[in-house]
Amino acid sequence: MRIDERGLEEELYRRYLEIRSPRMRAILRVQDEALSALRDFLRGEGFVEILAPIIGPVTDPGIRGAKQVTIDYYGHPFKVMSSMILYKQMAVCSLRKVFALSPNVRLEPPEALKTGRHLAEFRQLDLEVAEATYHEVMDLAERMLRYVCARVRDRCGEELEFLGRDLRVPAVPFKRLSYREAVDLLRGEGFDIDYGVEIPWDAEEHLSAMFDDPFFVYDYPKTARGFYDREDPERKGILRDFDLLYPEGFGEAISGGEREYEYERVLERMRRTGEDPRAYGWYLEMLKEGIVPSAGFGIGIERLTRYLCGVPKIWEAVPFPKVPGIPSP
Amino acid sequence: MRIDERGLEEELYRRYLEIRSPRMRAILRVQDEALSALRDFLRGEGFVEILAPIIGPVTDPGIRGAKQVTIDYYGHPFKVMSSMILYKQMAVCSLRKVFALSPNVRLEPPEALKTGRHLAEFRQLDLEVAEATYHEVMDLAERMLRYVCARVRDRCGEELEFLGRDLRVPAVPFKRLSYREAVDLLRGEGFDIDYGVEIPWDAEEHLSAMFDDPFFVYDYPKTARGFYDREDPERKGILRDFDLLYPEGFGEAISGGEREYEYERVLERMRRTGEDPRAYGWYLEMLKEGIVPSAGFGIGIERLTRYLCGVPKIWEAVPFPKVPGIPSP
Repeated sequence: MRIDERGLEEELYRRYLEIRSPRMRAILRVQDEALSALRDFLRGEGFVEILAPIIGPVTDPGIRGAKQVTIDYYGHPFKVMSSMILYKQMAVCSLRKVFALSPNVRLEPPEALKTGRHLAEFRQLDLEVAEATYHEVMDLAERMLRYVCARVRDRCGEELEFLGRDLRVPAVPFKRLSYREAVDLLRGEGFDIDYGVEIPWDAEEHLSAMFDDPFFVYDYPKTARGFYDREDPERKGILRDFDLLYPEGFGEAISGGEREYEYERVLERMRRTGEDPRAYGWYLEMLKEGIVPSAGFGIGIERLTRYLCGVPKIWEAVPFPKVPGIPSP
Repeated sequence: MRIDERGLEEELYRRYLEIRSPRMRAILRVQDEALSALRDFLRGEGFVEILAPIIGPVTDPGIRGAKQVTIDYYGHPFKVMSSMILYKQMAVCSLRKVFALSPNVRLEPPEALKTGRHLAEFRQLDLEVAEATYHEVMDLAERMLRYVCARVRDRCGEELEFLGRDLRVPAVPFKRLSYREAVDLLRGEGFDIDYGVEIPWDAEEHLSAMFDDPFFVYDYPKTARGFYDREDPERKGILRDFDLLYPEGFGEAISGGEREYEYERVLERMRRTGEDPRAYGWYLEMLKEGIVPSAGFGIGIERLTRYLCGVPKIWEAVPFPKVPGIPSP
């Protein structure tokens, strides 16, 4: 996507005018319906909504080239949350099935602007399930997404028509590709990708465009992800995790998996990813005491809205957008 | 309230254990029901849910002695939101009735810990209504709170019983005291309060304890509040704003009012409160273009939970508490 950065800065500065347009109103109504549908679905499945943290002494380190934000919290260096994953592991020991609308800040490199799907500030519907496998939460994710698409088609027909969006309600189960299958598919399309690395943004977009319905990629290699994605005890180097990708080139929707939950294993993984365990005080203490195994995922609300509405630029899918590199309201 | 700070720090550090207690589970279930009830009520009233900002170039300056958090946003000084009030004025021009679950950080002075109702990080259900008066949003607030209390009593009977909480469902309309009446009442109780200042925390708690049901205090003096609370054009120096207080000593529940929306008046108010208008670029540009008059309020979710559950310490009313002055998970 080609972006005129100067023009975009001007456009975002005047969001107070654009937000009043019939187009933005239609998009925001779809977003409202999607939020409502997500929560209704999860309550129906027995989930409890909790309040997500905003800041904390430590946050998710596995954020692919983006920078965390550090603040001064009464003399202590705190982070603005880039993901509440560590906190979900705490909560799931209490309530078994939890979700939250979690605020995240990730200062993506300015070039991420060009993907049309990266924001520096975004919200996830984050959930976690005690003693679930990654395939079980994939089952949950596909039913959830199907439910949301059906609700939005049903209740936002006018908005979708105005936006020119013919939204499909995907059938379940969704297609599930292993990471190896996905990389092989991309190699067949001329992408030069080594096994063991994260699938690059342009390749992911290409892969996404090869499908008409959402699909999973699972079993990422250990070398591509953070310390908390659980390594399969029977298949060294392979994580019991997954992404859900939207079709039509919209790319990543969901990232999730089973979690490492044993103290010694987490320490070992931290050593490999170069994390300093001393920064993870409460988290490691908690693991030492023992927590329940769990699996879960996060679904970005702005990306979901972008897909539902069929708009190419993610800054159209949020009322007050923060795009990488550009200061805006 | 007397607090052993050292003991509290230790206690909060081990929240991963306490969160599994039957008491915390009961409180978190009540919170979940309250969130669900709030949204159901507002959707029934025609509100649209929007995504709240997390950071931005400017945030609510009217936060009574608390410090804002500044971050480096691609070389620009940004704030973590302490209130999304300015953004609600933007959104209400588009969607007429909006609400959001908004994340707020306010570094309260460490002595605020002793009130038992201040957090350094909290969440509000923020709402705004185009062309409403402050008495209309007070009507809305009381129906909403009544609805939430009834739902929680109805669906969380077991949790309330476990917590030993006999929650009243308040009748509407709630009592409405003007600021002058409230100050006079407090003077009669021996509090030495000048007209024109914010009601101090200890006096507010005392006032709150004089009632059995929630009640409003309205018409605060201009000298006590931020630049965005609208001054009554017919009664100079008096704001068309209000607080809702919980009874039984639980104190402030809601803060709201009509908004200043005219460029010249806001500039004049900023001059008086000592704000630098240059920091408010997009906001003042927006006012120059013209916005719709509106009224709204924010209700703190943790304080609501504290009241519903009848727990004295606000850090019991949130899964991952941040209390003033103490670093914790």
